Amino acid sequence: MFTVFTGGSIGPWLVEAVHQIRGDGLPPAARLVVEPCPTIPPRGDPWSLVGVPSYVRYVHRNEKEQLTARQASLGRPEATRAALIPIAKTEEWWDLTQDERRSIFEERSRHIAASMKYLPAIARKLYQSRELGEPFDFLTWFEFAPEHSAMFDELVAMLRATEEWRYVRREVDVRLVKDA
Amino acid sequence: MFTVFTGGSIGPWLVEAVHQIRGDGLPPAARLVVEPCPTIPPRGDPWSLVGVPSYVRYVHRNEKEQLTARQASLGRPEATRAALIPIAKTEEWWDLTQDERRSIFEERSRHIAASMKYLPAIARKLYQSRELGEPFDFLTWFEFAPEHSAMFDELVAMLRATEEWRYVRREVDVRLVKDA
Repeated sequence: MFTVFTGGSIGPWLVEAVHQIRGDGLPPAARLVVEPCPTIPPRGDPWSLVGVPSYVRYVHRNEKEQLTARQASLGRPEATRAALIPIAKTEEWWDLTQDERRSIFEERSRHIAASMKYLPAIARKLYQSRELGEPFDFLTWFEFAPEHSAMFDELVAMLRATEEWRYVRREVDVRLVKDA
Repeated sequence: MFTVFTGGSIGPWLVEAVHQIRGDGLPPAARLVVEPCPTIPPRGDPWSLVGVPSYVRYVHRNEKEQLTARQASLGRPEATRAALIPIAKTEEWWDLTQDERRSIFEERSRHIAASMKYLPAIARKLYQSRELGEPFDFLTWFEFAPEHSAMFDELVAMLRATEEWRYVRREVDVRLVKDA
């Protein structure tokens, strides 16, 4: 089952801002809807992005146990702020071998360990897109309460300063507010 | 770009045999065609399978260098035999973490190291299917000369005896001959 994020005029999430972080941005949209879909639908207007939840690519057993113990699930009533961050990495990244990617991702960039302090305030779900012929390689969806917005900004700034982010060729940061 | 393997009445590959190795098999077909496709097409009659070439999930740098030095490419004129082996692994496998899957795949099952002796006689290409909502997780395509058929049988028998294969829930082995 695919998950489709459609920017347009309908949906429970109001688009607060669309930040073009690296490479091409996304056209403006007033609202966002997140829906499951059994097939990859035709491209939405002005945009839609498709991903699929998948198995972990870098996480080790001890890290998974820590993450499972600390992380919050999506849909908490107080989490009225969200962010959709689609990312594409360079061909250089994808040509690396598994040990090289893991080394940059965690041993040097501390992607998992350094993100741990933002749990459970920030809930997160990752969708893979690369194999679907999509413009991005993955889509990450975050949910948090308004009082944790500054903490979320700190999290994304921390990640963008890592060695891993040198391999990001396109990134857009869509900020959303739940239409109460 | 997706790659579609369609079993039916057309195509340059004659289906010699379809072996149901584990789980459900595939309906009989006389011929097979392998084609690139920009979108996931409707299911073929009697069957079609879709995959996409992707980045390596388990291979380390030293292994990649050995593989690159030894492997042959597809399309050699003498390679008039082929096999399409679609495989699905259990949910237990996909719930493992990266370090656990790598450990079973290579440190204990020697998937990469033990396969190395069959290169360059057996050419191989892997297509990912799991994220596409397909019935199999990946499709492996092999090409070899008729005199290497017994060697190919040895390779698949060796892999099927590994610890990794305990996590295979469905496997079909389609043997093909090029229509000269």
